[in-house]
Order: sequence, then C-alpha cells, then structure tokens
Amino acid sequence: MANDERRDSVDFDNEQADQRTHDEMQECIEECLNCHAVCTMTLQHCIAIGGDHTEVNLIGILLDCAEMCQTSANFMLRGSPYHVVTCAACAELCRACEEACRGVAGDEQLTHCGDVCAACADSCDRMARMGSEE
Amino acid sequence: MANDERRDSVDFDNEQADQRTHDEMQECIEECLNCHAVCTMTLQHCIAIGGDHTEVNLIGILLDCAEMCQTSANFMLRGSPYHVVTCAACAELCRACEEACRGVAGDEQLTHCGDVCAACADSCDRMARMGSEE
Amino acid sequence: MANDERRDSVDFDNEQADQRTHDEMQECIEECLNCHAVCTMTLQHCIAIGGDHTEVNLIGILLDCAEMCQTSANFMLRGSPYHVVTCAACAELCRACEEACRGVAGDEQLTHCGDVCAACADSCDRMARMGSEE
Amino acid sequence: MANDERRDSVDFDNEQADQRTHDEMQECIEECLNCHAVCTMTLQHCIAIGGDHTEVNLIGILLDCAEMCQTSANFMLRGSPYHVVTCAACAELCRACEEACRGVAGDEQLTHCGDVCAACADSCDRMARMGSEE
Repeated sequence: MANDERRDSVDFDNEQADQRTHDEMQECIEECLNCHAVCTMTLQHCIAIGGDHTEVNLIGILLDCAEMCQTSANFMLRGSPYHVVTCAACAELCRACEEACRGVAGDEQLTHCGDVCAACADSCDRMARMGSEE
Repeated sequence: MANDERRDSVDFDNEQADQRTHDEMQECIEECLNCHAVCTMTLQHCIAIGGDHTEVNLIGILLDCAEMCQTSANFMLRGSPYHVVTCAACAELCRACEEACRGVAGDEQLTHCGDVCAACADSCDRMARMGSEE
Repeated sequence: MANDERRDSVDFDNEQADQRTHDEMQECIEECLNCHAVCTMTLQHCIAIGGDHTEVNLIGILLDCAEMCQTSANFMLRGSPYHVVTCAACAELCRACEEACRGVAGDEQLTHCGDVCAACADSCDRMARMGSEE
Repeated sequence: MANDERRDSVDFDNEQADQRTHDEMQECIEECLNCHAVCTMTLQHCIAIGGDHTEVNLIGILLDCAEMCQTSANFMLRGSPYHVVTCAACAELCRACEEACRGVAGDEQLTHCGDVCAACADSCDRMARMGSEE
C-alpha cells in the first residue's frame, strides 16, 4: 500500500483503486504541515506577549505539537507504512494542544491554533484508523 | 488558506510599511515547505526505482536539501532574525540539489524537483540579500 | 513530574526522591540520540554499498527510525509529559528497524544497528510504561 | 571525500590517512549534539523560571541554535560534503546564542549553556574552514 503511494506526489494523479486513501493522506499531510506552521507561529506570539502566555505547559505543548506534526507529515511524505504509528501519536498531541489553547480565553491566535489542532487531530485519527484496519 | 493563516503571525502587522518584506517572507516559507516536501517524495521515488537513482550523491543531496529547507522554513515561521543565515545556506543546498536532479535525464519527477529547487534557491537568495541589507 | 525534571540537565545532580525515574530518562535520551546517529550512519553505509542494501523497505525504516528517535529524544530533553506517547511510538519504530537490519545477513554495520535499535526499544518501552503507570 | 567519510561511523576505526579530519568531525558531531541538548534543556529552564528569562530574543535564539545544531550534526552523520555550509551557519548561530546566554547574569544554567555554545562554535568554525580549504 504505502509502496504504491511512494511513487505519487502531492501534485500528480494516480490510477490506483484506493484514490480515497490517497486523497485522505494528501489532506492529512496538509493538515500536519499547516498545524506545524500555526503552532510554531503561535509559540512566537505567546513569547512576544509574555505573562501567562509563557506559562510552561502552553509553551511546552506548542513545541511538542509542532514537532510531532512535522514528524507525522514527513512519514506520510515518505509513504512510510509506519505513518499509522506517528499519526496516532500526532492525534494525541494535537488534542492536548487544542485543550491548552482553549484554556486561554480571549486570544484570537490561540483560538485559531486550537481550531487548527482540532482539524489535524481528526485527520490524523482517520489515517491511524484506516491504517490499522488494513 | 494557509496564506491567510500565516498572516496572523507574530511580529508583522499587515499595515506595516514593509509589506513587501512580509510578502516575500511568506513566499519564501511556502517555497521552502514545498521544496522540503518535493525533495522528500523524490527521495522515495529514487529509492523505489533503484539503479543509478540510488547513486550516493543524488540520495545524499535530496536528504540534505529537504532538511535544510525544513530548518529554513522553521526559522522564518519563528520570525527569527537569523533567517538570513539559514536562507543563505538553504539557497546553496537548493542549487546543488537542482544540479543533481538535472544530472539524471528523462525522469519527470527529478525534472520537477529540479524546478522546485531552482525556485526555492531564488526565493532564499532574495531573503538572504534583503536581510543583510538591513 | 516532568516539570521538576525540566530544571535538571543531563549534567547536574538533583535531590529528587525519584532519582530512578530521572536516571532512566537520562539513559533513554542517550539511547535515542545514539540510535538516531547510528541509523543515520547506517543509511549512508547502505546507500554507499548499493544493491539490495538500497531496498526500499530498509532505507525507509532507517529514515523513519532515525527521525522518531530524534523526536523522542527532544520530547525528553524538553521534559515533556507527552514523552510517554513519543517513547511508545519510538519503541515500535525501533523494533521494526531492528527486524529490517537483522534481515540482511553478514553486514557488520547492520548487525550493530540492529543491536542499538533493540536497546533503544527496550529503554523506550520502560519509559512508556513508567509514564502510563503514573 | 564525502564518500569515504560516509563509511566511517562514530564507533569504527578507519585506516584513512586523514585520521585528523575524521577525529575533528567526530568531535564536531558530539559538540553539535551536546549543544542541541543543552540549548533545549536551557529553554525549558528559562520557561520554568519565567520573567525576563522568557524574553523573546533569548527564547528565540535558544530554539534557533538548538535546531541548527541538530541539522549540522545530521549533515556530518550523513557524511555530507555540504557540512561545510551547515557548520558555517551553525557557528554563527552558536556565537549569537553564547552572547544571549552571557547577557543574563547569575544563572548557572545559562552560563553553562554559553560555554557549550562557545565550544560548539569553535568546533564548527574549524570544520567549515577545513572543508573550504579542500
């Protein structure tokens, strides 16, 4: 399965029967890359604002989530069959990061980051389930 | 979509005088993320095909270029003033990777990868020059 | 727990009651960093040798294992409470990489890499279990 | 050149004439891995302490230096000829991080981090010069 996908890229069509799997994976790659970018920028936002925005758990989970999203995206870009493992871990980190972001009220960037994390968690969960059903 | 999200970031207001710098940086982030993704997928393509596609210099430079693009993108996502240093290094790696890709004739993925590397090198060069003029 | 460890570094003693947890984590960080380094060097070794050493699954799992070890080490270096998630994922990747290395007979570097992966998997398993018992 | 180096690992002897280059590179890999680890732990230390330890430039340069050290180590672990480029960039980041660490008086962890950065910068400078003389 993963082997076939290795040959495809984000940009090229394939004639595989499992187009759906392919499309879901492309979507998940984009969600992970986006979530990595948004968490990284949100981290800077929090450090720039200071105060309780630099609270250790918030900064920590933003770093954790960004790094796991990057790793998860890279596994899928390589077409690794172990993306099931990394997507499952990534979903868990994204949920935790979403929760931490929602814990700070009235900050637009954090609200946005929470939404992005939630979407990425859903997408990673789907990939992890799809993989383990095979 | 991702473009809009990147605008919510940290240090730069959209009404700033240096809107041009900001736009150039957004473009460069996208070029680096894209180049990282394409190099990573091209690596898999080369390993899947085998033969002279797994020649040590080609595989090596694809890994090098992918990693440097990721690092360069992360510096810009963090709004780091040292993106000048990493963009300059990234431009050099992209040029070398472009050359290696162009060295293998008749492979559509490698041709595509060479084009992406060339575009990323140009964008990183502009960022590096802009930064050092400041 | 993780918060306390954040203050310690590899080099400094601490007066914590849970010295054992601390020592186990330091050991696991070192195993992950070592496994990352050895997988990365083994990858180069395989590409340099060529032939069935560049078989797609072997190269793929070496890249996967190296990246997950790096991520796992970084989570522990940051004292992240989510190291439990990444250590569990890392143990799985290390087991798969050990198996792939052992699948190629008569190669000293691959035998060494298999041993290092096995040791890292054991250490990550212990960390993951320890964390989930808390 | 790079090919020969690729075959060596941290653990195995080689019969190369340029044993000195090899030893210098092993030392530089260790300096970079150590500097990455110490910067990452120092980051946590600063966030845990709070106040002016979470000042945006200090946190930013610790993240930058840690990431560039990781990338630089990976290039050398892969035996990449482009380690000259990444070592030069890494030396620059380490100098900047050393300066930022020395800017906060009376903090043992930051003093230690500054020393480690200084040592890594020296080692990376040597590698960069050695490479460009070839």
